[in-house]
Amino acid sequence: MPCFKLTVAYDGTGFVGWQKQARGASIQGLLEDALSALEGRRVTASAAGRTDAGVHALAQVVSVQLERSVDETTVVRAANARLPAAIRVLDAREMAQDFHARFRATRKTYRYRIWNAEILSPFESGRAWHVPAPVLDVSAMAAAAHVFEGRHDFSTFQAAGSDVRTAERDVSSSRVVREEPVVVLFEITGNGFLRHMVRSIAGTLVEVGRGRRSTASVSEGLAACDRGRAGPTAPAEGLFLVGVEYE
Amino acid sequence: MPCFKLTVAYDGTGFVGWQKQARGASIQGLLEDALSALEGRRVTASAAGRTDAGVHALAQVVSVQLERSVDETTVVRAANARLPAAIRVLDAREMAQDFHARFRATRKTYRYRIWNAEILSPFESGRAWHVPAPVLDVSAMAAAAHVFEGRHDFSTFQAAGSDVRTAERDVSSSRVVREEPVVVLFEITGNGFLRHMVRSIAGTLVEVGRGRRSTASVSEGLAACDRGRAGPTAPAEGLFLVGVEYE
Repeated sequence: MPCFKLTVAYDGTGFVGWQKQARGASIQGLLEDALSALEGRRVTASAAGRTDAGVHALAQVVSVQLERSVDETTVVRAANARLPAAIRVLDAREMAQDFHARFRATRKTYRYRIWNAEILSPFESGRAWHVPAPVLDVSAMAAAAHVFEGRHDFSTFQAAGSDVRTAERDVSSSRVVREEPVVVLFEITGNGFLRHMVRSIAGTLVEVGRGRRSTASVSEGLAACDRGRAGPTAPAEGLFLVGVEYE
Repeated sequence: MPCFKLTVAYDGTGFVGWQKQARGASIQGLLEDALSALEGRRVTASAAGRTDAGVHALAQVVSVQLERSVDETTVVRAANARLPAAIRVLDAREMAQDFHARFRATRKTYRYRIWNAEILSPFESGRAWHVPAPVLDVSAMAAAAHVFEGRHDFSTFQAAGSDVRTAERDVSSSRVVREEPVVVLFEITGNGFLRHMVRSIAGTLVEVGRGRRSTASVSEGLAACDRGRAGPTAPAEGLFLVGVEYE
Protein backbone atom coordinates (compact mmCIF):
# COMPACT_ATOMS: atom_id res chain seq x y z
CA MET A 1 0.00 0.00 0.00
CA PRO A 2 1.87 3.09 -1.19
CA CYS A 3 2.45 5.92 1.24
CA PHE A 4 2.33 9.45 -0.07
CA LYS A 5 4.05 12.51 1.36
CA LEU A 6 1.93 15.56 0.56
CA THR A 7 3.08 19.16 0.87
CA VAL A 8 0.07 21.30 1.69
CA ALA A 9 -0.41 25.07 1.97
CA TYR A 10 -3.42 26.64 3.62
CA ASP A 11 -4.89 29.89 4.80
CA GLY A 12 -6.12 28.81 8.22
CA THR A 13 -8.64 31.66 8.57
CA GLY A 14 -12.07 30.28 9.35
CA PHE A 15 -10.90 26.71 9.96
CA VAL A 16 -10.91 25.00 13.37
CA GLY A 17 -7.26 24.07 12.78
CA TRP A 18 -5.54 21.04 11.28
CA GLN A 19 -7.29 18.46 13.44
CA LYS A 20 -10.83 17.19 12.94
CA GLN A 21 -13.25 18.49 15.57
CA ALA A 22 -16.83 17.70 16.43
CA ARG A 23 -17.83 21.00 14.82
CA GLY A 24 -16.41 23.23 12.14
CA ALA A 25 -14.28 22.68 9.07
CA SER A 26 -10.75 21.35 9.64
CA ILE A 27 -7.90 21.06 7.18
CA GLN A 28 -7.57 17.36 8.03
CA GLY A 29 -11.28 16.72 7.51
CA LEU A 30 -11.41 18.42 4.11
CA LEU A 31 -8.18 16.80 2.95
CA GLU A 32 -9.34 13.34 4.07
CA ASP A 33 -12.67 13.87 2.27
CA ALA A 34 -10.84 14.80 -0.94
CA LEU A 35 -8.43 11.85 -0.74
CA SER A 36 -11.18 9.43 0.29
CA ALA A 37 -13.15 10.39 -2.83
CA LEU A 38 -10.10 9.56 -4.95
CA GLU A 39 -9.47 6.31 -3.07
CA GLY A 40 -13.06 5.11 -2.86
CA ARG A 41 -12.80 4.39 0.90
CA ARG A 42 -12.09 6.44 4.02
CA VAL A 43 -8.43 7.33 4.49
CA THR A 44 -6.64 9.02 7.37
CA ALA A 45 -4.14 11.84 6.92
CA SER A 46 -1.41 12.63 9.46
CA ALA A 47 0.26 16.03 9.58
CA ALA A 48 3.72 16.99 10.83
CA GLY A 49 2.32 19.90 12.84
CA ARG A 50 -1.22 20.03 14.21
CA THR A 51 -1.77 23.75 13.68
CA ASP A 52 -4.34 25.61 15.82
CA ALA A 53 -7.46 27.38 14.52
CA GLY A 54 -6.48 30.34 12.35
CA VAL A 55 -2.85 29.22 11.95
CA HIS A 56 -1.57 29.02 8.38
CA ALA A 57 0.83 26.71 6.56
CA LEU A 58 3.15 27.46 3.69
CA ALA A 59 4.37 23.85 3.53
CA GLN A 60 2.69 21.52 5.99
CA VAL A 61 3.68 17.89 5.42
CA VAL A 62 1.01 15.19 5.47
CA SER A 63 1.29 11.43 5.07
CA VAL A 64 -1.46 9.18 3.78
CA GLN A 65 -1.70 5.53 2.73
CA LEU A 66 -3.49 4.96 -0.58
CA GLU A 67 -4.38 1.43 -1.75
CA ARG A 68 -5.40 2.52 -5.20
CA SER A 69 -2.61 2.71 -7.73
CA VAL A 70 -2.31 6.40 -8.58
CA ASP A 71 0.58 8.55 -9.73
CA GLU A 72 1.80 11.64 -7.90
CA THR A 73 0.31 14.13 -10.38
CA THR A 74 -3.12 12.50 -10.10
CA VAL A 75 -3.04 12.74 -6.31
CA VAL A 76 -2.28 16.48 -6.49
CA ARG A 77 -4.90 17.22 -9.13
CA ALA A 78 -7.66 15.06 -7.67
CA ALA A 79 -7.18 16.52 -4.19
CA ASN A 80 -7.12 20.13 -5.40
CA ALA A 81 -10.18 19.60 -7.57
CA ARG A 82 -12.16 18.79 -4.40
CA LEU A 83 -10.53 21.17 -1.92
CA PRO A 84 -11.53 24.80 -1.34
CA ALA A 85 -9.10 27.43 -2.73
CA ALA A 86 -7.87 28.10 0.82
CA ILE A 87 -6.21 24.64 0.90
CA ARG A 88 -3.84 23.49 -1.85
CA VAL A 89 -1.82 20.33 -2.21
CA LEU A 90 1.43 21.65 -3.69
CA ASP A 91 3.19 18.35 -4.16
CA ALA A 92 2.84 14.57 -3.69
CA ARG A 93 5.69 12.05 -3.45
CA GLU A 94 5.48 8.30 -3.11
CA MET A 95 7.54 7.24 -0.09
CA ALA A 96 8.70 4.09 1.66
CA GLN A 97 5.96 2.20 3.56
CA ASP A 98 7.18 3.41 6.94
CA PHE A 99 7.13 7.12 6.21
CA HIS A 100 5.07 9.11 8.71
CA ALA A 101 4.76 12.91 8.47
CA ARG A 102 4.87 13.49 12.22
CA PHE A 103 7.05 10.72 13.65
CA ARG A 104 9.71 11.04 10.94
CA ALA A 105 9.96 14.84 11.05
CA THR A 106 13.33 16.00 12.36
CA ARG A 107 12.77 19.76 12.35
CA LYS A 108 9.94 22.21 11.85
CA THR A 109 10.04 25.94 11.23
CA TYR A 110 7.35 28.37 12.33
CA ARG A 111 7.11 32.06 11.53
CA TYR A 112 5.19 34.90 13.13
CA ARG A 113 4.33 37.84 10.93
CA ILE A 114 3.86 40.98 13.04
CA TRP A 115 2.30 44.12 11.51
CA ASN A 116 3.79 46.98 13.50
CA ALA A 117 1.85 50.05 12.33
CA GLU A 118 -1.32 51.79 13.51
CA ILE A 119 -3.48 50.61 10.62
CA LEU A 120 -3.53 46.96 9.56
CA SER A 121 -3.58 46.58 5.78
CA PRO A 122 -6.79 44.86 4.62
CA PHE A 123 -4.55 42.38 2.80
CA GLU A 124 -2.92 41.37 6.10
CA SER A 125 -6.13 40.80 8.02
CA GLY A 126 -5.94 37.32 9.59
CA ARG A 127 -2.42 36.89 8.21
CA ALA A 128 -0.45 39.04 10.62
CA TRP A 129 -0.48 39.77 14.33
CA HIS A 130 -1.39 43.44 14.58
CA VAL A 131 0.81 45.26 17.11
CA PRO A 132 -0.11 48.90 16.37
CA ALA A 133 2.24 50.62 18.80
CA PRO A 134 4.88 51.34 19.94
CA VAL A 135 7.52 50.85 17.20
CA LEU A 136 9.02 47.54 18.33
CA ASP A 137 12.65 47.42 19.39
CA VAL A 138 13.71 44.75 16.91
CA SER A 139 17.34 44.60 18.11
CA ALA A 140 16.18 43.83 21.64
CA MET A 141 13.75 41.21 20.32
CA ALA A 142 16.50 39.63 18.20
CA ALA A 143 18.81 39.41 21.23
CA ALA A 144 16.06 37.87 23.36
CA ALA A 145 15.13 35.43 20.58
CA HIS A 146 18.64 33.91 20.74
CA VAL A 147 18.01 32.90 24.36
CA PHE A 148 15.81 30.04 23.09
CA GLU A 149 18.48 28.49 20.89
CA GLY A 150 19.91 25.19 22.10
CA ARG A 151 18.48 22.39 24.21
CA HIS A 152 16.17 23.63 26.98
CA ASP A 153 13.28 22.59 29.15
CA PHE A 154 10.49 24.75 27.71
CA SER A 155 7.95 24.21 30.53
CA THR A 156 7.64 27.98 30.95
CA PHE A 157 6.36 28.27 27.40
CA GLN A 158 3.81 25.50 27.27
CA ALA A 159 0.01 25.70 27.39
CA ALA A 160 -1.66 25.08 30.75
CA GLY A 161 -2.73 21.48 31.26
CA SER A 162 -0.27 20.01 28.78
CA ASP A 163 0.75 16.47 29.52
CA VAL A 164 3.91 15.50 27.69
CA ARG A 165 6.65 13.08 28.61
CA THR A 166 9.32 15.75 28.55
CA ALA A 167 9.35 19.49 27.93
CA GLU A 168 12.90 19.36 26.58
CA ARG A 169 13.25 20.50 23.00
CA ASP A 170 16.13 21.44 20.69
CA VAL A 171 15.81 24.83 19.04
CA SER A 172 18.37 25.19 16.26
CA SER A 173 17.46 28.73 15.26
CA SER A 174 15.38 31.53 16.77
CA ARG A 175 15.59 34.95 15.21
CA VAL A 176 13.75 38.24 14.75
CA VAL A 177 14.18 40.54 11.76
CA ARG A 178 12.42 43.60 10.38
CA GLU A 179 11.37 42.44 6.92
CA GLU A 180 9.68 45.62 5.73
CA PRO A 181 9.32 49.00 7.47
CA VAL A 182 6.18 47.83 9.27
CA VAL A 183 6.65 44.04 9.23
CA VAL A 184 8.60 42.18 11.92
CA LEU A 185 9.23 38.46 11.53
CA PHE A 186 9.98 35.95 14.25
CA GLU A 187 11.17 32.60 12.92
CA ILE A 188 11.98 29.54 14.98
CA THR A 189 13.26 26.11 13.97
CA GLY A 190 13.31 23.13 16.32
CA ASN A 191 12.99 19.39 16.59
CA GLY A 192 9.59 19.75 18.24
CA PHE A 193 7.33 22.30 19.87
CA LEU A 194 5.11 22.06 22.93
CA ARG A 195 1.50 23.16 22.69
CA HIS A 196 1.39 26.98 22.32
CA MET A 197 5.19 27.17 22.68
CA VAL A 198 5.70 29.30 19.57
CA ARG A 199 2.77 31.57 20.46
CA SER A 200 3.95 31.97 24.01
CA ILE A 201 7.54 32.76 22.96
CA ALA A 202 6.25 35.25 20.37
CA GLY A 203 4.12 36.97 23.03
CA THR A 204 7.17 37.19 25.29
CA LEU A 205 9.37 38.62 22.53
CA VAL A 206 6.81 41.32 21.75
CA GLU A 207 6.91 42.28 25.45
CA VAL A 208 10.66 42.74 24.97
CA GLY A 209 10.04 44.76 21.78
CA ARG A 210 7.65 47.02 23.69
CA GLY A 211 10.36 47.66 26.29
CA ARG A 212 8.39 45.94 29.05
CA ARG A 213 10.85 43.09 29.53
CA SER A 214 14.60 42.59 29.33
CA THR A 215 16.54 39.79 27.67
CA ALA A 216 17.76 38.80 31.14
CA SER A 217 14.18 38.32 32.38
CA VAL A 218 13.45 36.13 29.34
CA SER A 219 16.52 34.06 30.12
CA GLU A 220 15.53 33.74 33.76
CA GLY A 221 11.94 32.92 32.78
CA LEU A 222 13.12 30.07 30.57
CA ALA A 223 15.37 28.68 33.31
CA ALA A 224 12.59 28.91 35.92
CA CYS A 225 10.39 26.28 34.18
CA ASP A 226 7.35 28.17 35.43
CA ARG A 227 4.40 29.08 33.23
CA GLY A 228 3.85 32.27 35.21
CA ARG A 229 7.10 33.65 33.80
CA ALA A 230 6.01 33.59 30.14
CA GLY A 231 4.48 36.58 28.35
CA PRO A 232 0.95 36.48 26.95
CA THR A 233 0.17 33.89 24.27
CA ALA A 234 0.22 35.59 20.87
CA PRO A 235 -2.92 35.26 18.72
CA ALA A 236 -3.13 32.61 15.98
CA GLU A 237 -3.29 35.26 13.25
CA GLY A 238 0.15 35.77 11.84
CA LEU A 239 1.48 32.29 12.69
CA PHE A 240 2.66 30.17 9.75
CA LEU A 241 4.08 26.65 9.65
CA VAL A 242 6.84 27.37 7.14
CA GLY A 243 8.30 23.94 6.53
CA VAL A 244 9.20 20.50 7.84
CA GLU A 245 12.48 18.67 7.45
CA TYR A 246 13.12 14.91 7.26
CA GLU A 247 16.32 12.88 7.23
CA MET B 1 -18.07 72.79 5.19
CA PRO B 2 -14.65 71.12 5.16
CA CYS B 3 -13.86 68.67 2.40
CA PHE B 4 -11.74 65.63 3.26
CA LYS B 5 -9.55 63.61 0.93
CA LEU B 6 -9.43 60.04 2.20
CA THR B 7 -6.95 57.40 1.07
CA VAL B 8 -8.64 54.02 1.32
CA ALA B 9 -7.36 50.45 0.87
CA TYR B 10 -9.66 47.48 0.43
CA ASP B 11 -9.75 43.82 -0.38
CA GLY B 12 -12.64 43.83 -2.88
CA THR B 13 -13.39 40.09 -2.46
CA GLY B 14 -17.05 39.61 -1.62
CA PHE B 15 -18.07 43.23 -2.26
CA VAL B 16 -20.27 44.33 -5.17
CA GLY B 17 -17.63 46.94 -6.04
CA TRP B 18 -17.08 50.56 -5.04
CA GLN B 19 -20.53 51.76 -6.00
CA LYS B 20 -23.70 51.26 -3.98
CA GLN B 21 -26.06 48.71 -5.51
CA ALA B 22 -29.58 47.63 -4.75
CA ARG B 23 -28.16 44.43 -3.24
CA GLY B 24 -24.88 43.45 -1.65
CA ALA B 25 -22.23 45.27 0.36
CA SER B 26 -20.34 48.01 -1.48
CA ILE B 27 -17.24 49.89 -0.36
CA GLN B 28 -19.08 53.19 -0.88
CA GLY B 29 -22.06 52.06 1.17
CA LEU B 30 -19.98 50.87 4.12
CA LEU B 31 -17.74 53.94 4.04
CA GLU B 32 -20.73 56.31 3.86
CA ASP B 33 -22.34 54.45 6.79
CA ALA B 34 -19.17 54.85 8.85
CA LEU B 35 -18.76 58.55 8.01
CA SER B 36 -22.48 59.26 8.47
CA ALA B 37 -22.29 57.83 11.98
CA LEU B 38 -19.43 60.23 12.76
CA GLU B 39 -21.23 63.18 11.15
CA GLY B 40 -24.70 62.50 12.54
CA ARG B 41 -26.36 62.85 9.11
CA ARG B 42 -26.10 61.05 5.76
CA VAL B 43 -23.02 61.95 3.77
CA THR B 44 -21.99 61.00 0.23
CA ALA B 45 -18.53 59.74 -0.67
CA SER B 46 -17.06 60.08 -4.19
CA ALA B 47 -14.19 57.86 -5.35
CA ALA B 48 -11.56 58.52 -7.99
CA GLY B 49 -12.12 55.08 -9.55
CA ARG B 50 -15.38 53.16 -9.35
CA THR B 51 -13.85 49.71 -9.06
CA ASP B 52 -15.85 46.65 -10.13
CA ALA B 53 -16.91 43.76 -7.88
CA GLY B 54 -13.87 41.86 -6.64
CA VAL B 55 -11.39 44.58 -7.62
CA HIS B 56 -9.02 45.76 -4.89
CA ALA B 57 -7.50 49.10 -3.97
CA LEU B 58 -4.15 49.85 -2.40
CA ALA B 59 -4.83 53.61 -2.35
CA GLN B 60 -8.24 54.59 -3.66
CA VAL B 61 -8.96 58.30 -3.15
CA VAL B 62 -12.33 59.39 -1.84
CA SER B 63 -13.73 62.87 -1.18
CA VAL B 64 -16.42 63.67 1.35
CA GLN B 65 -17.89 66.89 2.79
CA LEU B 66 -18.22 66.90 6.58
CA GLU B 67 -20.11 69.69 8.38
CA ARG B 68 -18.96 68.66 11.81
CA SER B 69 -15.66 70.06 12.95
CA VAL B 70 -13.34 67.06 13.20
CA ASP B 71 -9.61 66.67 12.82
CA GLU B 72 -7.94 64.34 10.35
CA THR B 73 -6.92 61.74 12.93
CA THR B 74 -10.47 61.50 14.26
CA VAL B 75 -11.85 60.91 10.77
CA VAL B 76 -9.42 58.01 10.22
CA ARG B 77 -10.05 56.43 13.62
CA ALA B 78 -13.82 56.86 13.64
CA ALA B 79 -14.17 55.43 10.13
CA ASN B 80 -11.93 52.43 10.81
CA ALA B 81 -13.71 51.69 14.09
CA ARG B 82 -16.92 51.11 12.10
CA LEU B 83 -15.53 49.54 8.94
CA PRO B 84 -14.84 45.81 8.44
CA ALA B 85 -11.13 44.82 8.42
CA ALA B 86 -11.31 44.41 4.62
CA ILE B 87 -11.66 48.21 4.25
CA ARG B 88 -9.23 50.63 5.89
CA VAL B 89 -8.99 54.40 5.74
CA LEU B 90 -5.23 54.93 5.62
CA ASP B 91 -5.20 58.72 5.67
CA ALA B 92 -7.45 61.80 5.79
CA ARG B 93 -6.50 65.33 4.67
CA GLU B 94 -8.58 68.47 4.87
CA MET B 95 -8.70 70.05 1.39
CA ALA B 96 -10.01 73.17 -0.32
CA GLN B 97 -13.81 73.30 -0.73
CA ASP B 98 -13.67 72.48 -4.43
CA PHE B 99 -11.67 69.26 -4.14
CA HIS B 100 -13.35 66.28 -5.77
CA ALA B 101 -11.70 62.83 -5.85
CA ARG B 102 -12.88 61.97 -9.35
CA PHE B 103 -13.06 65.27 -11.23
CA ARG B 104 -9.73 66.55 -9.91
CA ALA B 105 -7.77 63.32 -10.51
CA THR B 106 -5.13 63.75 -13.20
CA ARG B 107 -3.79 60.19 -13.35
CA LYS B 108 -4.64 56.76 -12.02
CA THR B 109 -2.56 53.61 -11.88
CA TYR B 110 -3.98 50.09 -12.04
CA ARG B 111 -2.09 46.83 -11.60
CA TYR B 112 -2.90 43.26 -12.60
CA ARG B 113 -1.30 40.53 -10.57
CA ILE B 114 -1.06 37.32 -12.63
CA TRP B 115 -0.18 34.02 -10.94
CA ASN B 116 1.54 31.99 -13.64
CA ALA B 117 1.92 28.51 -12.13
CA GLU B 118 -0.20 25.39 -12.09
CA ILE B 119 -1.28 25.72 -8.46
CA LEU B 120 -2.61 29.01 -7.10
CA SER B 121 -1.28 29.72 -3.62
CA PRO B 122 -4.13 29.83 -1.06
CA PHE B 123 -2.80 33.25 -0.06
CA GLU B 124 -3.34 34.56 -3.59
CA SER B 125 -6.91 33.32 -3.97
CA GLY B 126 -9.04 36.30 -5.11
CA ARG B 127 -5.93 38.48 -5.24
CA ALA B 128 -4.36 37.27 -8.46
CA TRP B 129 -5.55 36.21 -11.88
CA HIS B 130 -4.63 32.54 -12.13
CA VAL B 131 -3.09 31.71 -15.52
CA PRO B 132 -1.79 28.16 -14.86
CA ALA B 133 -0.11 27.50 -18.23
CA PRO B 134 1.84 28.01 -20.40
CA VAL B 135 4.75 29.97 -18.94
CA LEU B 136 3.91 33.45 -20.23
CA ASP B 137 6.28 35.14 -22.66
CA VAL B 138 6.85 38.25 -20.56
CA SER B 139 9.13 39.96 -23.10
CA ALA B 140 6.42 39.71 -25.75
CA MET B 141 3.82 41.00 -23.27
CA ALA B 142 6.10 43.92 -22.32
CA ALA B 143 6.57 44.88 -25.96
CA ALA B 144 2.82 44.68 -26.62
CA ALA B 145 2.07 46.70 -23.46
CA HIS B 146 4.04 49.66 -24.85
CA VAL B 147 1.58 49.85 -27.78
CA PHE B 148 -0.95 51.44 -25.43
CA GLU B 149 1.30 54.31 -24.35
CA GLY B 150 0.37 57.74 -25.70
CA ARG B 151 -2.96 59.29 -26.69
CA HIS B 152 -5.28 56.81 -28.38
CA ASP B 153 -8.94 56.14 -29.08
CA PHE B 154 -9.51 53.08 -26.87
CA SER B 155 -12.91 52.05 -28.34
CA THR B 156 -11.54 48.55 -28.99
CA PHE B 157 -10.94 48.09 -25.27
CA GLN B 158 -14.19 49.34 -23.81
CA ALA B 159 -17.12 47.36 -22.42
CA ALA B 160 -20.09 46.75 -24.72
CA GLY B 161 -22.83 49.36 -24.36
CA SER B 162 -20.56 52.04 -22.93
CA ASP B 163 -21.75 55.56 -23.65
CA VAL B 164 -18.98 58.09 -23.14
CA ARG B 165 -18.36 61.40 -24.87
CA THR B 166 -15.00 60.31 -26.20
CA ALA B 167 -12.96 57.12 -26.04
CA GLU B 168 -9.69 59.05 -26.27
CA ARG B 169 -7.41 58.61 -23.29
CA ASP B 170 -3.79 59.39 -22.48
CA VAL B 171 -1.77 56.45 -21.20
CA SER B 172 1.54 57.64 -19.77
CA SER B 173 2.90 54.21 -18.86
CA SER B 174 1.99 50.62 -19.68
CA ARG B 175 4.40 47.89 -18.72
CA VAL B 176 4.69 44.20 -17.91
CA VAL B 177 7.33 42.71 -15.63
CA ARG B 178 7.97 39.35 -13.98
CA GLU B 179 8.01 40.25 -10.30
CA GLU B 180 8.68 36.80 -8.86
CA PRO B 181 9.27 33.48 -10.65
CA VAL B 182 5.52 32.84 -10.89
CA VAL B 183 4.12 36.38 -10.64
CA VAL B 184 3.67 38.63 -13.67
CA LEU B 185 2.58 42.23 -13.17
CA PHE B 186 0.88 44.48 -15.69
CA GLU B 187 0.78 48.12 -14.60
CA ILE B 188 -0.88 50.96 -16.47
CA THR B 189 -1.09 54.69 -15.70
CA GLY B 190 -3.40 57.06 -17.54
CA ASN B 191 -5.55 60.15 -17.26
CA GLY B 192 -8.69 58.06 -17.39
CA PHE B 193 -9.92 54.59 -18.21
CA LEU B 194 -13.03 53.42 -20.05
CA ARG B 195 -15.23 50.77 -18.49
CA HIS B 196 -13.36 47.42 -18.51
CA MET B 197 -10.46 49.01 -20.42
CA VAL B 198 -7.77 47.71 -18.03
CA ARG B 199 -9.38 44.25 -17.89
CA SER B 200 -9.71 44.07 -21.64
CA ILE B 201 -6.10 45.20 -22.23
CA ALA B 202 -4.88 42.69 -19.61
CA GLY B 203 -6.82 39.89 -21.35
CA THR B 204 -5.25 40.89 -24.65
CA LEU B 205 -1.74 40.96 -23.21
CA VAL B 206 -2.15 37.48 -21.75
CA GLU B 207 -3.12 36.28 -25.25
CA VAL B 208 0.23 37.70 -26.38
CA GLY B 209 1.98 35.98 -23.49
CA ARG B 210 0.41 32.66 -24.49
CA GLY B 211 1.78 33.09 -28.01
CA ARG B 212 -1.70 33.40 -29.52
CA ARG B 213 -1.31 37.00 -30.65
CA SER B 214 1.45 39.23 -31.96
CA THR B 215 2.32 42.77 -30.92
CA ALA B 216 1.40 43.84 -34.47
CA SER B 217 -2.12 42.44 -34.06
CA VAL B 218 -2.51 44.34 -30.78
CA SER B 219 -1.40 47.52 -32.51
CA GLU B 220 -3.81 46.93 -35.39
CA GLY B 221 -6.60 46.06 -32.95
CA LEU B 222 -6.11 49.35 -31.11
CA ALA B 223 -6.12 51.33 -34.37
CA ALA B 224 -9.24 49.54 -35.61
CA CYS B 225 -11.49 51.00 -32.87
CA ASP B 226 -13.49 47.78 -32.97
CA ARG B 227 -14.49 45.83 -29.86
CA GLY B 228 -14.23 42.57 -31.79
CA ARG B 229 -10.46 43.04 -31.96
CA ALA B 230 -9.84 42.96 -28.18
CA GLY B 231 -8.89 39.84 -26.27
CA PRO B 232 -11.13 38.40 -23.54
CA THR B 233 -11.87 40.59 -20.53
CA ALA B 234 -9.63 39.49 -17.65
CA PRO B 235 -11.37 38.54 -14.37
CA ALA B 236 -11.67 41.06 -11.54
CA GLU B 237 -9.42 38.96 -9.28
CA GLY B 238 -5.92 40.29 -9.48
CA LEU B 239 -6.85 43.87 -10.39
CA PHE B 240 -5.73 46.59 -7.99
CA LEU B 241 -6.24 50.35 -8.10
CA VAL B 242 -2.72 51.29 -7.02
CA GLY B 243 -2.94 55.05 -6.70
CA VAL B 244 -4.39 58.34 -7.88
CA GLU B 245 -2.54 61.54 -8.70
CA TYR B 246 -3.72 65.16 -8.38
CA GLU B 247 -2.20 68.47 -9.48
